[in-house]
Parts: sequence; structure tokens; C-alpha cells
Amino acid sequence: MGKPPPTLMSMNNPLERSIEWEGKFLRVVRIGRWELVERTNDVQGVVIVAITDERNLLLTEQERLPVGKRVIELPAGLAGDLASNHGEQPVAAARRELLEETGYDAGEMTWLASGPPSAGLSSEMVSFFRASRLRRVGSGGGEGEERIEVHEVPLQQCAAWLRKRESEGLLVDPKVYAGLYLAGLT
Amino acid sequence: MGKPPPTLMSMNNPLERSIEWEGKFLRVVRIGRWELVERTNDVQGVVIVAITDERNLLLTEQERLPVGKRVIELPAGLAGDLASNHGEQPVAAARRELLEETGYDAGEMTWLASGPPSAGLSSEMVSFFRASRLRRVGSGGGEGEERIEVHEVPLQQCAAWLRKRESEGLLVDPKVYAGLYLAGLT
Repeated sequence: MGKPPPTLMSMNNPLERSIEWEGKFLRVVRIGRWELVERTNDVQGVVIVAITDERNLLLTEQERLPVGKRVIELPAGLAGDLASNHGEQPVAAARRELLEETGYDAGEMTWLASGPPSAGLSSEMVSFFRASRLRRVGSGGGEGEERIEVHEVPLQQCAAWLRKRESEGLLVDPKVYAGLYLAGLT
Repeated sequence: MGKPPPTLMSMNNPLERSIEWEGKFLRVVRIGRWELVERTNDVQGVVIVAITDERNLLLTEQERLPVGKRVIELPAGLAGDLASNHGEQPVAAARRELLEETGYDAGEMTWLASGPPSAGLSSEMVSFFRASRLRRVGSGGGEGEERIEVHEVPLQQCAAWLRKRESEGLLVDPKVYAGLYLAGLT
């Protein structure tokens, strides 16, 4: 991420790569006729499927400026997005983000899968982890400006609960469904 | 999508919205300290979970410039992204994209869910559909510059098949897992 992939330069019909705009967090790159987005820092996303001993799934709810609505998501964040945790490994970021957002510390964190959630738009990559042996050690809610509400939803009621929140005008990030599939929770 | 959500202007601490960059397809907007990406046209994504009568899942494989690798995805595209189909409904776009990419016409197309795949980065929204009663009427492969390879994978072998392709260096879009969950295919 953040560097031109060498394969593009070695293609029979090489495409020119130019930086069209760069801010603090994002960069717009043009490759041929494609416009795409990269994160300026060498970061990747982490997403956590966290299940309590009581078989509840932890879900977050927060106002998301890009979509202008409250969104239900799995606990998630970026690995290595601050100077203080530059070079942070994804599994460590997953544990840190779960703690910051939900107040739960994970005794076990297992990698499930990694992939690009918007491969036609962005170089962004996310890794999914399953968190278990959870222990509540804080209040959660996120860091700084974040105001994250945490929900503990019995696994068997998740699908119905998500539909109900949508009927109230909230959005559900499709990564919730991906995480449930990857954790074998259907 | 593409317009400032009114709720932002009515918050106690209103945040200024400014357009930082605008290209043909994408626009970078700053709201407060957030940098976010919007599509310039009034489009949304469609993703299709297509199952043949033989219980095979249709998957696409193509080089994706934003990530610089070949990516395994569900058939997908944008609703209303061309002048010729402006205002196109998502369900119609799902049928068109499935046909263009895979050569299969869907006798039945059922909405499964909609949501923001990258709510912290982009205003992008995607809708998932389940396609059935498939009939092969063309060769697929995509439109114009697209060079899409189509795979028909027996449902029961999907998980193993995806792991194998990853071991060969390909990436898997997490929306594949979301689609499988939503279609109840585990």
C-alpha cells in the first residue's frame, strides 16, 4: 500500500501513475483513466468479531461523517495510524481497538482473513480477527472525539436485531456479515 | 450521496464542508478534520450472489489497479454510472452487471441488504442481491477494457477454493464472505 505496484510498470501497456491530490490522511492517485484513493500512512484496517462468554456479539454504533448517518459496525480501526503506534502489528491493533471502543480486553485474538473491501476504489486492506476470552476492564467509547455506543447482542438474535436498527434509519456495514461468516456464526 | 447530509448542519458544533479535489469519478471532501471520498455521479454499488442450478457460486477474477493485484470478487458494478443508464435502479443494474461480467441472465433477482462498505473513508453504498434461475446467454468478461475471468465454484468447496487462490497470491474481497452470509450459504 502506498507504493506503485511493480507489476503495473512491467505490463505490456504501462499506465502512467500521478498523484492528483494529497491531504493528511488520503491521497488521490490517477493510473490511466482510473482515479483511486490511498491512505497516506502505511496503515491497514482491522475488524474484530468479538464474542463474550455469554455468546453475545459486540457491535459499535457511531455517527459516520462520510455517509452522514449512524452506522452499526464491528469494532474496527487502523493499525499504525498514529505516531505513537507506527509499525504496530495488526493483531496488536485489533486488541487495542477492541479495548478502546468496547472496554473489553481479549484473552485470545485469532486471525480470520484479510482482503480489500473496495478494490475498485481504494488500496485499503482490512484484516478480520476473532476475539474471545473477553474481560471487561474499561468503559469503551473510543478515543478523543469518538463517541461510540456499544451493543452486546445475543448471537442468535443478530440478524433480527440488525434489521430492526435498519428500520430505525441506521446503516449496517456489510463487514458485519463478512465477520459473522468468517467466524462461522450463522 | 454527493450532498451534505442535513444533520451535520444542525449539530450543536457544525462542521465546515469543503471540496478539496474533484475529478471525473471521485471527489475529496473535507468535513472538519475528516478527509473523505465521494463518487461524483449519483451512483451506488451492486453486488450479486449468483448461484447456478448446479449449486455453483459465480466468482470474478480481475486485475484491480487500486490494490495492484488480481482480486476474487462477487460479480459487481455501479448502478447508473453511464449516461446511457442514468437513473438505473439497483436491481436492474445487478442484472445487467451479472450478464456483462459472467454471461448469465438471472430469472430471479432478490434484494438481500444494503450498507456502506467503508463508512470511515467513503460515502459509497452497496446493495447485495441474490441471483437464481440462471441461464447462460453470453460469454461474459465485462465491458470495454475489463478483462474479467469467471469461476464457477461448487458452494461446498468455496472456502477451500478461496484459501487456495490466496495461497497463489490473489486477494479476496471481504464482500464475498458478506454475500455468502446474507444468502444463508455456509
